[in-house]
Amino acid sequence: MQKSPIPTFLEIYKNKSLPFLDKFFSKKILEAREAGTISKEILGHIYDLSKKGKKIRGFLVVLGYMLAGGGNEKRIYDTSTFIEIAQTALLIHDDIMDEDDRRRDQKTIHNIYEDIGKKTNIKPSPKRYGENMGICAGDIAFYLSWEKLVTGNFPASRLLEASSLYASCFTRVAYGQALDISPTSRELSEKEILAIYRLKTAEYSAVLPLHIGAVLADGNNKDFLSNLEAYGLALGLAFQMQDDILGMYGDSQTTGKPVGSDIREGKQTLLVAHFLKNATEEQRSYFKTVYGIPDISKNDILTIQNIMKTSGSYDYVIALGKEYLEKGCKTISKITKKPNFRQILDNLLTYAIHRIQ
Amino acid sequence: MQKSPIPTFLEIYKNKSLPFLDKFFSKKILEAREAGTISKEILGHIYDLSKKGKKIRGFLVVLGYMLAGGGNEKRIYDTSTFIEIAQTALLIHDDIMDEDDRRRDQKTIHNIYEDIGKKTNIKPSPKRYGENMGICAGDIAFYLSWEKLVTGNFPASRLLEASSLYASCFTRVAYGQALDISPTSRELSEKEILAIYRLKTAEYSAVLPLHIGAVLADGNNKDFLSNLEAYGLALGLAFQMQDDILGMYGDSQTTGKPVGSDIREGKQTLLVAHFLKNATEEQRSYFKTVYGIPDISKNDILTIQNIMKTSGSYDYVIALGKEYLEKGCKTISKITKKPNFRQILDNLLTYAIHRIQ
Repeated sequence: MQKSPIPTFLEIYKNKSLPFLDKFFSKKILEAREAGTISKEILGHIYDLSKKGKKIRGFLVVLGYMLAGGGNEKRIYDTSTFIEIAQTALLIHDDIMDEDDRRRDQKTIHNIYEDIGKKTNIKPSPKRYGENMGICAGDIAFYLSWEKLVTGNFPASRLLEASSLYASCFTRVAYGQALDISPTSRELSEKEILAIYRLKTAEYSAVLPLHIGAVLADGNNKDFLSNLEAYGLALGLAFQMQDDILGMYGDSQTTGKPVGSDIREGKQTLLVAHFLKNATEEQRSYFKTVYGIPDISKNDILTIQNIMKTSGSYDYVIALGKEYLEKGCKTISKITKKPNFRQILDNLLTYAIHRIQ
Repeated sequence: MQKSPIPTFLEIYKNKSLPFLDKFFSKKILEAREAGTISKEILGHIYDLSKKGKKIRGFLVVLGYMLAGGGNEKRIYDTSTFIEIAQTALLIHDDIMDEDDRRRDQKTIHNIYEDIGKKTNIKPSPKRYGENMGICAGDIAFYLSWEKLVTGNFPASRLLEASSLYASCFTRVAYGQALDISPTSRELSEKEILAIYRLKTAEYSAVLPLHIGAVLADGNNKDFLSNLEAYGLALGLAFQMQDDILGMYGDSQTTGKPVGSDIREGKQTLLVAHFLKNATEEQRSYFKTVYGIPDISKNDILTIQNIMKTSGSYDYVIALGKEYLEKGCKTISKITKKPNFRQILDNLLTYAIHRIQ
């Protein structure tokens, strides 16, 4: 399989949007002076996290705006950064929930503060302190992303509509998260997992930024928004299929996560749902004894990776990814006639299923 | 000391605003159908918590609106509910941080889900699951409050300004929280504690709702907003002084918290800061051995309560509360000439320092 590097347009977006992100955080750090050095420090961590990442969401805001005919590049690059800060907020809270130690090549925020708590022997415990600071930092990042959006240089009615889309979509992300972590007495079906993927990933990562960009350009044409939605869902789900693959087979050097991270965490992925439906009784019972063990042996990881292939689950998820890619491709001509935009929409879909991180 | 019951106007606000809160949650519960029963359940918990409470913040939004000349009672009652949902969000996250079991006469949300996790023997642990659901539920409540505000029936520019006030003020609340929970190698000074009280309580609980109400009525007169701010700060700090007193001497029957809850939690309050500065060496060293012990004996609680009185700290905080009350009273004539509004502003201040819950 051909492995795509980060597409050039994402790198360009990253460079062009960085000064706006930087300016916003400099302003907030200045404002936080009276609130003690701890606030300044937290802002620094949120900024560091927001700078990194693949920047797909921020780029999609700009793309949605341009596809809808928006012409003020400076303003949209500036405002688009709100969604990268929102993404940081989600990650900070997610990392607490998953008890993850590292994120984007640095320690997770709750982990940074747990270490500080250890040094000061804090009560009731360094772990409690770390998580509490993580909850605060995630909340701060949410508020900052709101502020960044509503203070954008766009007509009030458009910003308000964008805010409303943001709020209702993020509510659904949290519904998806709650559904995902909650106990079920049975294995989730493929349909249920796809519903979680849609709530937890595709809608907010692809449909929402495209829609917000379009709304900010006053592109409220119903058909146009609905075509953007179809494209965004296909893109988001294709992206998620590759996430399943990377969580099972990804190289820790490029993903930044330990090998077989989904196995260690016992994630209920589509890959797993397909496997459990199609595996032999022996494979199933072996799987259940080792899946979700944090310190699972290398050998067991290899075995799991292998039986996921022999059961046909790997091929199934790869094929589904391609299906979403094709679905997405079909919507492109309805969205735009401009060759350069078509190329970008096409490249994004290819990147989604060929990316290695 | 005369103990005031909940003022009538708060009861009236509660009754008048409830149908709007109810309508909003009914709509959200309907929308959440496809996201599984767990989402519906979380919405139910958020609704239950938002219904209860003293409703001061929601009332202050309505009051700020009316003081600024706003005339659409229905719209402002409807939109004002956003801040009660925001308050619920803060409480949900705070209760995780403080590991509190009960809130507003019911189990805290993280506690409810910890119990569910115990029944299903959930991995990695019921405690983890409970807190994760609490983080999700708090996030959902924030998004809902955001949605409630931005979808209000007011001109877009006013809603946008209100949203911007909300976002930046809540950022400061979280700064205050982070400051409050973070380790210091020394005892906090009274000045530092007052700064935390201002960030964590007075600004968002009193100044923000009054300002948002005024802004929604288009009352952007700078002097008017600055008088509202002076009144709000005085009200918020007077309220906080009584919080110190109730946390130390409150009756668990009315506060809903265990007797001496601040002692058990080892809270750094103004009462404590004054005590540590003025106590005898013997009192200080005794204090340090028992303050912050969750299962402290009844006898030790009584002793702490007593030495806080003999050191003059109780009188000091009571006197400071009265000082804020007087400061607040002085601003009333600058805010409004109408006798009925003056009466309410006056009653609120009295209630703040005489309330028993």
